[in-house]
Amino acid sequence: MRAALVVTGTEVLEGRVRDENGAMVAASLAAAGVQVQRITVVGDALDDIRSAVAEALAGGADLVVTTGGLGPTHDDRTMEAVALAAGVGMVIDQHALEMVRAAIATVPARASQQTRETGARKQATLPEGAVALPPPGTAPGAVLAVGDALVVVLPGPPWECAATWESARALPQVAALLGHGEGSAPLELRLANVVESEFMEAIDRADPEARGLVVGVCARPGELEVTIRPPGPVADEFVAFLEQGFPGAIFARDGSTVEQVVGAALHARGDLLGTAESCTGGLLGARLTSVPGSSAWYAGGVVSYSNAVKESGLGVPAGLIDRHGAVSAEVAGAMAQGAMERLGCARAIAITGVAGPGGGTPEKPVGLVYVGIGGPDGVTVHELRLHGDRERIRMRTCTIAMHLLRTALAS
Amino acid sequence: MRAALVVTGTEVLEGRVRDENGAMVAASLAAAGVQVQRITVVGDALDDIRSAVAEALAGGADLVVTTGGLGPTHDDRTMEAVALAAGVGMVIDQHALEMVRAAIATVPARASQQTRETGARKQATLPEGAVALPPPGTAPGAVLAVGDALVVVLPGPPWECAATWESARALPQVAALLGHGEGSAPLELRLANVVESEFMEAIDRADPEARGLVVGVCARPGELEVTIRPPGPVADEFVAFLEQGFPGAIFARDGSTVEQVVGAALHARGDLLGTAESCTGGLLGARLTSVPGSSAWYAGGVVSYSNAVKESGLGVPAGLIDRHGAVSAEVAGAMAQGAMERLGCARAIAITGVAGPGGGTPEKPVGLVYVGIGGPDGVTVHELRLHGDRERIRMRTCTIAMHLLRTALAS
Repeated sequence: MRAALVVTGTEVLEGRVRDENGAMVAASLAAAGVQVQRITVVGDALDDIRSAVAEALAGGADLVVTTGGLGPTHDDRTMEAVALAAGVGMVIDQHALEMVRAAIATVPARASQQTRETGARKQATLPEGAVALPPPGTAPGAVLAVGDALVVVLPGPPWECAATWESARALPQVAALLGHGEGSAPLELRLANVVESEFMEAIDRADPEARGLVVGVCARPGELEVTIRPPGPVADEFVAFLEQGFPGAIFARDGSTVEQVVGAALHARGDLLGTAESCTGGLLGARLTSVPGSSAWYAGGVVSYSNAVKESGLGVPAGLIDRHGAVSAEVAGAMAQGAMERLGCARAIAITGVAGPGGGTPEKPVGLVYVGIGGPDGVTVHELRLHGDRERIRMRTCTIAMHLLRTALAS
Repeated sequence: MRAALVVTGTEVLEGRVRDENGAMVAASLAAAGVQVQRITVVGDALDDIRSAVAEALAGGADLVVTTGGLGPTHDDRTMEAVALAAGVGMVIDQHALEMVRAAIATVPARASQQTRETGARKQATLPEGAVALPPPGTAPGAVLAVGDALVVVLPGPPWECAATWESARALPQVAALLGHGEGSAPLELRLANVVESEFMEAIDRADPEARGLVVGVCARPGELEVTIRPPGPVADEFVAFLEQGFPGAIFARDGSTVEQVVGAALHARGDLLGTAESCTGGLLGARLTSVPGSSAWYAGGVVSYSNAVKESGLGVPAGLIDRHGAVSAEVAGAMAQGAMERLGCARAIAITGVAGPGGGTPEKPVGLVYVGIGGPDGVTVHELRLHGDRERIRMRTCTIAMHLLRTALAS
């Protein structure tokens, strides 16, 4: 079972937008145990799309998924490119046309009636033999059989793409194809507080290949993600070996993020969390509240970017900032204490640091961050020294801070 | 001048990580006026990388840039793949070896001396004839001439990739190649408060192709990004036509983000901004503080996720929440007022809404958001009704809220 993805979009080729759609479909296929061989990103030109699809089919892909290029204008040519690659013509699909007309009727009429109808007919023109997929926006997707392979054509806006992919997966012919991958979804571990090089050495020593396992390691800021294929007793044995070598490092075995793990631990204890953020400016709160239902365990926070807000919003004594500086263990501790008191929370995370690119000094360089973890037994402050650019330092700080709280909750 | 990118990484193929490196290089090339023809994402297998590089060269690319696969372990085989595609052997580069040894010496020794030296020799083994690029981490990149084309090999960790790409661009042979694109960097406009379909109709009517212009439109949550090529009097005329058709919509002509534009406007007035966030949980503060130097105009915020924090942290009267609900124009207004008073700011943005997926009711469905904009003349509240998933609603809310403040600052 081989899959290939063709992502269309000049904005991705010009680096103005990160591809979300290819990643979404790839993750969905990986969860079904299907390995994507290649993702090809091309522009909006008809022949670029056609050749990418044709190459994927010629390369032996059983499943080709395209995203983007299904809009109402003449620039949107993915359906035509797929028809050319498959060697079939284009026809108006009456069912698709009705669905598009119904979808257009629900959005406010900004364009003329004639423009709307022209657009609708264009969006309902599909490769001959294709099955239309209902449009979450106004663009229907399609599934086309080409020999023994299937081509699934999805729209470009990420939420439309995700919804149409769900429709496609529900079709019997797609479900049957994906069924071949079933049961071989990999084990997906997440580890924290592990040095990558040390981990890689341990993996090499264990020689998973000799055991018939394929182990993938992906370093994320502050974490490692490890996939082990195929699942089964040998994989479980390998996990036990990792547990022994890196005690306490594995924090999730089901792909859960640290946000979810921390939220579940807080919820289980009935503890509320409050945050006090300086250099991360709200990023920690944003990541915690990316979890649906986080209001059950997250009360809120203070983004104390200025010293004045550290004093007024968190009760950090002005003298403390004068004596030790805003980026100091003392201020991080006072911020965590203030967050618990002011926000009425049993637990707190406080962050103050130098994210750069400016503001660093020899004593307090860019990347120096203090994290205060508050709980019923008081506040503990941790000093971090991080490398990288502003966004990397901010993102990594939040990840490490959540792991520090996770460890505190587990003890 | 044709460029192609080859991104290696099983984690990208499995959808666990968004590709940052291809996007970074693509954006850098686009800014130099070089159009990327294709981005190919492949896994770590030697032959997959080799064939992607070989296809790019065979397809007539003048510049091929690869990212990833330069680590010390036997899984990292991009250098070997490039050598195979170019038809040259592999040799230890003494200069590269010295650079790797020096880089390794600065990081704490976690691995044995022998493992480190083996890794160093592996990382210093380059395609014959390649020029080594200094390693920001421990992996040197390389530039290899293949006929008239150049292959640039970059490491995978995003900040190492970006730094090595800068080194590569400084090499005379790469600079000369990129020079061919110079002077044709596109005009890059950003627009807000425009309906995409309406905008596309206007573009179609204006027929830029007949004027010799290539116009690219990219919809982002709440914004449109428009690139116009080539720059010059005809492009300027086209911008004037857009200004007339969509008065006030163009908010940046140099690629500035709304965060940067709002920050500059606040700074010019000497006004401080404070935020009060409920459903966005800190995302607005995180986006504002992604701008280096934002402390000059951003004081901080209150993430009032719970009603208790809305009352204690922002002074929202409990009765107001009881009467109108936490998601209401009244509470948004009180949050903005509270943010100005509590944070000592002349300007405030307050956000309260239903981000979903749960929590919606027929009266207050998922996607209903109230944004309060506070200033010297008081508070104005705007009602938004957004579609999409939780992250899309949160991200779009922040973008729209910043545009509402931008408009208020301009009046």
